[in-house]
Amino acid sequence: MRITALAGGVGGAKLAHGLAQILLPENLTIIVNTGDDFEHLGLYICPDLDTVCYTLAGMANPETGWGRAGETWNAMTNLKRLGAPDWFNLGDSDLATHIERTRRLKEGQTLSQIMRDFCKAWGVKHAVLPMSDQPVRTIVETEEGDLPFQEYFVHRRCEPRVQGFRFEGVGAAEPACGAYEALQSAEAVIICPSNPWVSIDPILRVIGEIDKPVFAVSPIIGGQTVKGPAAKMYRELGIEPSALAVAKHYRSLLTGFVMDSVDAQLAEEVQGLNMRVFVTNTLMKSLDDRMQLAKEVVRFIGEAI
Amino acid sequence: MRITALAGGVGGAKLAHGLAQILLPENLTIIVNTGDDFEHLGLYICPDLDTVCYTLAGMANPETGWGRAGETWNAMTNLKRLGAPDWFNLGDSDLATHIERTRRLKEGQTLSQIMRDFCKAWGVKHAVLPMSDQPVRTIVETEEGDLPFQEYFVHRRCEPRVQGFRFEGVGAAEPACGAYEALQSAEAVIICPSNPWVSIDPILRVIGEIDKPVFAVSPIIGGQTVKGPAAKMYRELGIEPSALAVAKHYRSLLTGFVMDSVDAQLAEEVQGLNMRVFVTNTLMKSLDDRMQLAKEVVRFIGEAI
Repeated sequence: MRITALAGGVGGAKLAHGLAQILLPENLTIIVNTGDDFEHLGLYICPDLDTVCYTLAGMANPETGWGRAGETWNAMTNLKRLGAPDWFNLGDSDLATHIERTRRLKEGQTLSQIMRDFCKAWGVKHAVLPMSDQPVRTIVETEEGDLPFQEYFVHRRCEPRVQGFRFEGVGAAEPACGAYEALQSAEAVIICPSNPWVSIDPILRVIGEIDKPVFAVSPIIGGQTVKGPAAKMYRELGIEPSALAVAKHYRSLLTGFVMDSVDAQLAEEVQGLNMRVFVTNTLMKSLDDRMQLAKEVVRFIGEAI
Repeated sequence: MRITALAGGVGGAKLAHGLAQILLPENLTIIVNTGDDFEHLGLYICPDLDTVCYTLAGMANPETGWGRAGETWNAMTNLKRLGAPDWFNLGDSDLATHIERTRRLKEGQTLSQIMRDFCKAWGVKHAVLPMSDQPVRTIVETEEGDLPFQEYFVHRRCEPRVQGFRFEGVGAAEPACGAYEALQSAEAVIICPSNPWVSIDPILRVIGEIDKPVFAVSPIIGGQTVKGPAAKMYRELGIEPSALAVAKHYRSLLTGFVMDSVDAQLAEEVQGLNMRVFVTNTLMKSLDDRMQLAKEVVRFIGEAI
């Protein structure tokens, strides 16, 4: 089975990790949201790309959902002492990623070239692509005005009430080198359990129409998100957060939808949206959970297409 | 006694530290070479300024002569793994200095403003000024061509034979804010035991004529430098490295010269250059040595002016 997966940070990274355990490198490409990327302290930071790569490399911090395991914080401690903006935490090992990425971008290398080299250095064998080599910036439109994503997400801790989203630069952004080919050769596309509004929508906007069967895994379980503000965003936009709401969000795209057992009572209504439904345990607490869900999703796709 | 000291890295930093122990903040200003400054990995690095500040703050690594005590190297280890240029070592805590300095410079702050803030954060009470807020770049002219200073000093380990030096940008560089006032109000100027060619000459070129009594401490002891390439440079320029050669180098400037006891036999010849001479132990192995030399130099100046 040849798959292209679309992923944001934590939840998406976990399923991508599971897929990488069961699919050969030539059979899996992961296209990652870069709408959350930003410049901070003069460094170019790609939170979702780094989370996916660190997770696939087995280097991710399992506690936080971002950053690296066994991290030290001496640069950050000293940046704070010097009065530098300290709302975005950067570990010492993680800093190397941002410093070297920024250096190479300034030399004119593309983000996809750079991430390919980094993945090689980190021992990540599956292709991890930024959605685009051109900048796309997710802006969260809130009651307190427009906020760049990290400003909303980290600095303001998702507190301002959301009214909408826009993706600056998306009109001019091309899919990154290799993304088009991956989508062409894929038998199916998996939308990983990431935030539909701010992790997946930017990717979908960049890659445009998909002429392959698309399957989504709900990031909402029992009306809540495992991590992140997706459920809060749904509520503030006047939509009851649920697996059903996610299925409706992607509606026209989907051949099939994977949702958690705790939401089994919604399965019939989702089927009514004209898509196949698979109900299983989607909460990924362990590496085994990730592999198990990946296997089940791939099996479901195999049966559906 | 109100003193302005001119300093480069290690040796200069040690005497500056000694002077800071015995002079009140209002009576000591240290003007530091910035000809060694360079951009590396997108960061603006000031080796001499940082060595002087770290030394005065009691944060310097006593083993290396550069960088910070108790340093960790996780960013560097990871930069190497990513294939980044790794010939210039940057510790995790030290990185914070370069990141925040670079960020502020890009915001339009001057180097002297930034270092004043940093000194405050580090608890350095004496004024430490860059020689200029404009860039001056020391170029080492060698048999293998021109090399920017750090390229020569760190990357090439001072191996290429030296033919001369030039200081790019020195014509347009003004003394940093406060340097002129410090020189005006000083009773004497001390040239610390730093490399005359590449640490002190750039400062002298920037600040121009000094109409105060100037005293130098020889960085050459028994024909050798405690650290750094000064003796090697003298030899390659066809000059026998000695305290006498240093006194001749600064000749027209000096009211007095301080040299080590092992060089006592040269004292008479130095006096013949029309300057007062003070012979003592100038090797600073401990903080006590630094204070002792500082006291003796200040006493010598007091008697000489």
